[in-house]
Amino acid sequence: MDSKDQKQKGSQAFVHNPHLDALKEDFLYHFDLGTGTHDLPAMFGDVKFVCVGGSALRMKSFSEYIAGELGIKDPASGTNICAGTDRYAMYKAGPVLSVSHGMGIPSMAIMLHELMKLLYHAKCKDVTVIRIGTSGGIGLEPGTVVVTKQAVDTTFQPRFEQVILGKTVVRDTHLDQSLAQELLQCSKDLNQFETVIGNTMCTLDFYEGQARLDGAFCFYTEKDKQDYLRKVYEAGVSNIEMESSVFAATCKLSGVRGAVVCVTLLDRLKGDQISSSHEVLQDYQQRPQILVGCYIKKQLKVKAGGRQV
Amino acid sequence: MDSKDQKQKGSQAFVHNPHLDALKEDFLYHFDLGTGTHDLPAMFGDVKFVCVGGSALRMKSFSEYIAGELGIKDPASGTNICAGTDRYAMYKAGPVLSVSHGMGIPSMAIMLHELMKLLYHAKCKDVTVIRIGTSGGIGLEPGTVVVTKQAVDTTFQPRFEQVILGKTVVRDTHLDQSLAQELLQCSKDLNQFETVIGNTMCTLDFYEGQARLDGAFCFYTEKDKQDYLRKVYEAGVSNIEMESSVFAATCKLSGVRGAVVCVTLLDRLKGDQISSSHEVLQDYQQRPQILVGCYIKKQLKVKAGGRQV
Repeated sequence: MDSKDQKQKGSQAFVHNPHLDALKEDFLYHFDLGTGTHDLPAMFGDVKFVCVGGSALRMKSFSEYIAGELGIKDPASGTNICAGTDRYAMYKAGPVLSVSHGMGIPSMAIMLHELMKLLYHAKCKDVTVIRIGTSGGIGLEPGTVVVTKQAVDTTFQPRFEQVILGKTVVRDTHLDQSLAQELLQCSKDLNQFETVIGNTMCTLDFYEGQARLDGAFCFYTEKDKQDYLRKVYEAGVSNIEMESSVFAATCKLSGVRGAVVCVTLLDRLKGDQISSSHEVLQDYQQRPQILVGCYIKKQLKVKAGGRQV
Repeated sequence: MDSKDQKQKGSQAFVHNPHLDALKEDFLYHFDLGTGTHDLPAMFGDVKFVCVGGSALRMKSFSEYIAGELGIKDPASGTNICAGTDRYAMYKAGPVLSVSHGMGIPSMAIMLHELMKLLYHAKCKDVTVIRIGTSGGIGLEPGTVVVTKQAVDTTFQPRFEQVILGKTVVRDTHLDQSLAQELLQCSKDLNQFETVIGNTMCTLDFYEGQARLDGAFCFYTEKDKQDYLRKVYEAGVSNIEMESSVFAATCKLSGVRGAVVCVTLLDRLKGDQISSSHEVLQDYQQRPQILVGCYIKKQLKVKAGGRQV
């Protein structure tokens, strides 16, 4: 990494809010952490990677996994830093912070607001944020890992609409392309499972919003569903999930490198129900963790090597 | 309750989906429950009240509280029925089912799809569903409980917009007015805290979406915020939260009586941060539980009395 890159990354803002510095104390309510009660720079100042995923249990197991991969023997990697609340769970293993975000854009949005404020208050530098999750694939073999190029909305546009003061604001959802390529390269190095780079459609619902026939309500036919999913496929969408658009928009606004790495649990062109065995699903869900673990190890090795020169 | 009412309530559909009965097995993925693996009528056939709230811990404590109130000594009231997943938590105390829904419309929507299918598969009858939650008040003393009349969107309209097969569908968000009045009467009987009936604005974000000045991003001024919240107040909104619109729309579509009972943790006309002490917030959060507990006890007493006649 040359000094210009280093400088650019060192200048990460995380936040854009002139009101923040006027707060006597900033309480991150949904993390149960605050500037008045916690020494955030001491707790989080060394964080270089933040991995986020929907499930609290999965993020705990990821933190323990990455601690093992990095040879960190600190048992704190499995201790929930946000134990004072059950809104989110947070774990730390050396420079890797793991945080759960629940399901859907609003739940992810709250977490990201508080995460970016945490990184800002902790004076972190050079941070990469990666979502590791699950998704429905479009025309892909179940178990395929998709690294998102762009998060697109239900009209297949790379944008995230947000209502602010009653007016709709549109935000860009392009993700860091070099980071996506580096993750793809890790998958090639690993050679354990298929990984592709593709567009990810982000929806506000899992059933009707993703054209499933197995929700409580369904007022369309099997043919309507197939016609729609065909359009999704033809628009170049590789997978469907529920958080990528606000994640991408927030990374862009915050000036952090961000990536979305989701495994596909089924091929939506062939069905709706997630009916693979528990063991198969467990194996699938570990794939984004293995891929991102490989990437983090490689990055830390490059840095350690750099220091020795 | 006369026989006509009984018949109408007995005819609850819960679902509107011709495809469901064709499924060989219906696996409720986010509950880790299914028709092929669980005897849903035996497990849930006696459910008459479903209480839902964001936090899993709060729903556990509600289930234990209602078990005590109803004199149910079964320790199963504190056992998570969805222990095979950490997406949602579910507890049962006699006829009262308690389920967590996470934060935001999408997380609530997934839970409700699977809840309505569960009630359908379990052949439940005469079910009332109540959301007990927290919210930001508009011009109300913190700690006031709001029973929602209508859930309104950010343009103050009583509607919920959902994208289905790429097209926007608008659904009605009126809630059962007689149920709201019965809940208000319970609060008068209790005489422990202030309760009002009012409109609830449902947003997709907690920070920018609710005009807060303390998010990671804020591109508006304090005056812009105050002007907007003044409009919210003038439109007759009593409180703001993040799940009521899809809850109301789903209850209406499912044909169940539904209510939203949220305590206000702060007055948004006076601030953004939730800065009351842990003890005060705990007390506030118990108010919807106490109110709904009183309502359920009253209803069960009426029924028991009815049988004796």
